[in-house]
Amino acid sequence: MSKRYDYRGIQQWVKRIFEAYPFSEQSSTAIAQSIVATDLFGIESHGVQRLAMYDRKIRAGDIRVGAAAEVIRESPVSAVIDGHEGMGQLVAIKAMELAIKKAEQSGIGIVSVRHSNHYGMAGYYAKMASKKKMLGISATNSNPFLIPTHAMRPFLGSNPIAFAMPAAPHDFLYDAATTVVSLGKIEIYAKQKKSIPGAWAVDNKNRISRDARTLQRNLSHVPKIGGMLPVGGQGEDNGGYKGFGNALLVEILTSILSQGNLSADLGDGRAKGISHFFAAIDLHLFGDANKITDALSQMLERIRRLPPEPGKKIYIHGDKEADALEERVKNGIPIDLKTLNEMTALSDRLQVPYQQYL
Amino acid sequence: MSKRYDYRGIQQWVKRIFEAYPFSEQSSTAIAQSIVATDLFGIESHGVQRLAMYDRKIRAGDIRVGAAAEVIRESPVSAVIDGHEGMGQLVAIKAMELAIKKAEQSGIGIVSVRHSNHYGMAGYYAKMASKKKMLGISATNSNPFLIPTHAMRPFLGSNPIAFAMPAAPHDFLYDAATTVVSLGKIEIYAKQKKSIPGAWAVDNKNRISRDARTLQRNLSHVPKIGGMLPVGGQGEDNGGYKGFGNALLVEILTSILSQGNLSADLGDGRAKGISHFFAAIDLHLFGDANKITDALSQMLERIRRLPPEPGKKIYIHGDKEADALEERVKNGIPIDLKTLNEMTALSDRLQVPYQQYL
Repeated sequence: MSKRYDYRGIQQWVKRIFEAYPFSEQSSTAIAQSIVATDLFGIESHGVQRLAMYDRKIRAGDIRVGAAAEVIRESPVSAVIDGHEGMGQLVAIKAMELAIKKAEQSGIGIVSVRHSNHYGMAGYYAKMASKKKMLGISATNSNPFLIPTHAMRPFLGSNPIAFAMPAAPHDFLYDAATTVVSLGKIEIYAKQKKSIPGAWAVDNKNRISRDARTLQRNLSHVPKIGGMLPVGGQGEDNGGYKGFGNALLVEILTSILSQGNLSADLGDGRAKGISHFFAAIDLHLFGDANKITDALSQMLERIRRLPPEPGKKIYIHGDKEADALEERVKNGIPIDLKTLNEMTALSDRLQVPYQQYL
Repeated sequence: MSKRYDYRGIQQWVKRIFEAYPFSEQSSTAIAQSIVATDLFGIESHGVQRLAMYDRKIRAGDIRVGAAAEVIRESPVSAVIDGHEGMGQLVAIKAMELAIKKAEQSGIGIVSVRHSNHYGMAGYYAKMASKKKMLGISATNSNPFLIPTHAMRPFLGSNPIAFAMPAAPHDFLYDAATTVVSLGKIEIYAKQKKSIPGAWAVDNKNRISRDARTLQRNLSHVPKIGGMLPVGGQGEDNGGYKGFGNALLVEILTSILSQGNLSADLGDGRAKGISHFFAAIDLHLFGDANKITDALSQMLERIRRLPPEPGKKIYIHGDKEADALEERVKNGIPIDLKTLNEMTALSDRLQVPYQQYL
């Protein structure tokens, strides 16, 4: 059960919540924009639903309100940033802005980040680059969820990676966990009391489970019970070692290059601070940027127009997000009752008035 | 049925075959090393088994023996290369050498290539960078095999991507198609008359088929019948749009950035010349390169030592290749009778003596 709310009001509300911690007005605006953009894109799992989690982490001191991300190593094409356990969105925006600045000057900028926090939707930061007519990449490690092929325990994070590339009528935007789905998706199935349609996660005997509520309980248990499967599934028959390998690549780009904490050592009250990776690449390196984006737009349109399976529509990555954005700007973002109750309770505690946004 | 042959002899034999076309001695050595390295790594699908295909393409003029790859655009961190339809291995080696040189000077080098040809194993070129203590990336588009999620026809190539990173006791090496498997793997199952253990490919009604010989026939038919599924499988339930998205990313890095031919327009006697992408990243950008590779080696070792599924062993990407290399350097590379007959027929035609290598 959910109701629709105007996104501008919700963004204002979220901003005021973060000002109460207190983050600066500028920081609170940036955080609120990132969170509400995720809801506008239809990725509810990473939007205002996450406010309760951020609140818990801020109160526990895992997210440090006053932290300032620090550039600890730099070249004309690269940087390493220590987030000093600040709010993930703020660290990520600073890191991607730096990657873009380097790409403007040198053609490419890559930035590896340690000691940050959950940064929401990976694609938000990749899109910062594509808005500047660059190819953008964003990735992060996370608490350990992914079970390596043939192992009995999770070790790698869900380790999402996002790519954005300028295109018409809207940017190409790939944004996906290297597990079959993100934990957020299991949470949504659990909330809706629906059973899971695929082989996404297993119990502690590596048996595939389709019960969303049990899985959610197992995966949030301390210590974790069972774990999530890599893209390609269990074992080797359908290429599960590919999802496992992609998760390892993300781990390398994030925690290994930045010398931060491994996914394996996060969560369950252990090491604090996750790692990210960002890249921006100027299309002019390769030729006329408009011609390159035109070629991409034309290719994507050809794919959309392939003969579809009966009753199905072919979507390019970013299409559903663009559709959701248009529809939700007009009709509001849906917020379920549980999330709304969390937001009002949180606002009451922080003495943030919110009646005007409901 | 296969027999073992000393790899040095086979490499010499392959070199002499290419000298007969005629490629220069230096070029023939480089091609032979790349092809035989693939057999040494246990990736038979891309090794000497491919000689008959290269021969067909050379005779058809699709691979141009005298072509010299040309740098058509360049910056301190990047280049675009036109392969002028030369032998893929030669174009790829030149491109990766340039990426490495730029990374030595600027920290990063990325090179997008058009009008090249089948270059064998993607990981061979990624490893050129990791041998220099750099992170290496290599990717290529190919004939259209991959069916986008919910489409009825293939459009993207199997579009493999490889990453290599220095580590002990041997480099991390991820090398995989963005389809569930490469076509070569289906060919091997067809040769061995085994049925397929997973959902890898479909017929022209999008029905999953497990009959390797039918699939091989369908996929080599002109026009192609059916196609291959992306990693994550058919539809959306297990993340098939992720494999589809990764294939799109490879298509962007290769044919879109280099302004070459799309996978969709290759094969079946249409556009000629495929596209590649290479990147080399100097680890010193991020800190002490030895510390970074030590951290990676330690993480990979922790994964190998996780509790395994009963009766299974946990492999990191590159482990099986390292095992195969050690074993095959000692015991020779296995060559099946069909491939051996192709090699001897080819050598007879080119008047290359080979008795000494058998």
